[in-house]
Amino acid sequence: MLPLRDAMRDTRAMSTPVHPLDAATHLEPLGSGHYRGHTSPNYANMVGPFGGVIAATLLNATLRHPGCQGDPIALTVNYAGPLADGGFTVKASPVRTNRSTQHWQLVMMQDAQVAATASAVFASRRATWSALEARFPEIPGARELQVEPNVERAPWTRSYEMRFVEGALRHSSHARQDSNSRSTLWIRDTPPRPLDYVSLVAICDAFFPRVFVRRPVWAPVGTVSFTTYFHADAALLAENGEAAVLGTARAHQFRNGYFDQIAEVWSEGAALLATSHQIVYYKE
Amino acid sequence: MLPLRDAMRDTRAMSTPVHPLDAATHLEPLGSGHYRGHTSPNYANMVGPFGGVIAATLLNATLRHPGCQGDPIALTVNYAGPLADGGFTVKASPVRTNRSTQHWQLVMMQDAQVAATASAVFASRRATWSALEARFPEIPGARELQVEPNVERAPWTRSYEMRFVEGALRHSSHARQDSNSRSTLWIRDTPPRPLDYVSLVAICDAFFPRVFVRRPVWAPVGTVSFTTYFHADAALLAENGEAAVLGTARAHQFRNGYFDQIAEVWSEGAALLATSHQIVYYKE
Repeated sequence: MLPLRDAMRDTRAMSTPVHPLDAATHLEPLGSGHYRGHTSPNYANMVGPFGGVIAATLLNATLRHPGCQGDPIALTVNYAGPLADGGFTVKASPVRTNRSTQHWQLVMMQDAQVAATASAVFASRRATWSALEARFPEIPGARELQVEPNVERAPWTRSYEMRFVEGALRHSSHARQDSNSRSTLWIRDTPPRPLDYVSLVAICDAFFPRVFVRRPVWAPVGTVSFTTYFHADAALLAENGEAAVLGTARAHQFRNGYFDQIAEVWSEGAALLATSHQIVYYKE
Repeated sequence: MLPLRDAMRDTRAMSTPVHPLDAATHLEPLGSGHYRGHTSPNYANMVGPFGGVIAATLLNATLRHPGCQGDPIALTVNYAGPLADGGFTVKASPVRTNRSTQHWQLVMMQDAQVAATASAVFASRRATWSALEARFPEIPGARELQVEPNVERAPWTRSYEMRFVEGALRHSSHARQDSNSRSTLWIRDTPPRPLDYVSLVAICDAFFPRVFVRRPVWAPVGTVSFTTYFHADAALLAENGEAAVLGTARAHQFRNGYFDQIAEVWSEGAALLATSHQIVYYKE
């Protein structure tokens, strides 16, 4: 299996290098909504791939489906078990198509076991009365902040450029304990890549597990369910181009093995592009 | 079909009245994870049933499944199309059972069409380091606030007792426009009913669509995707008994036909029981 070469043949001239995110989320169509994919070392996590790239791959299966209508509105991914480095399959099924919305169910399989399930809602959007209630964080511009060193234990962090205002992992000293787990940062793909739904959903999961910000201890963690709501249409995403986006993440509660986290992702131009939620298992 | 009588035979002595929520979410097992249910006039909405009772019915299908293990951690419901008043079927499928977690997919059908899909994660919880970051709202106790009149257009509101501190629909005057859509209230089932996962998830959807709080105009709306994270184990829910719970809801953004809303539900004793998110279609 040569996913990189396939990706190049598929969508670009042979002379254009494929972005590592496009290679990692590349899917070979097998017909009837079935696809074959392969994990990428560029997005490896401590065990298996970075969850954001799993979500991006599942979203990509829907986006690439010939029956797909509209833009993504909501994506929920349930991580049912660890995905090992290697090949996997995805099945994307449209379960109902209405006049302006379309509902999808997805399953990712590896070694005859369900690795992840997902659901997606797509819709055709129209201009309506609109209002923003959340506030764009008042923070320095990306260029005024230093790039954070990568996290060695999490190779996928090499695929992002992060510039923290608060809540970087290196700030997780004991002094922070009993405080809060908020992070605020500028983040973009590296090498740079124009923002689209695939990269946006991966970025929504690129905020470290809040328990690591709150407690300076490495312990087993794993997202069990992850939801992203897309507030942006494709044109608004395209406006951001390769610029960094602003992300904030925080938790409501850590309790008996599970904590939640909520994130906002804003464009450089102060448009709220996505809100995202997840619930995460943690040990001890 | 006699769902009320079935419910009584099923779980209670003939002399004990069935709570309307238990009648509305009652499911007759058909074998192999299939169930038959029926909508209830007590939880009717402007079109079809209140979405919270659809979510509660889907959760109930998992809770009643003989293979169900642990307590709910996450539930996502995608409302694929309108559910008409009448009968429907639910299929609950366990897709993966691990040592401490179990993943489910659910489908609700009516007239050979998918009305809703759902996914649920259940888990066995253990005592761990815990921390609360969200703040319990400082508001008057439930008994110090007046009960809000029901909303005539939404018959399901008769099944709840709501006492608002802010953001009731009757406060939606033009003066509120360009302000914000936050609501804070005490809410409980009426007649009173001990809190459990079924009633909690319905309450998570009992905050009116934020667009109605923000704009004093009745216009078509409909939740397309709804997620609840359960922070409470069954013992913590039982502690609350029939007391009201405190809910807050707000939106991040209304944009081109869709807005999100996020809610917190707290026990009378200041424990955060659930956080919930949804994305909602609105017209104009």
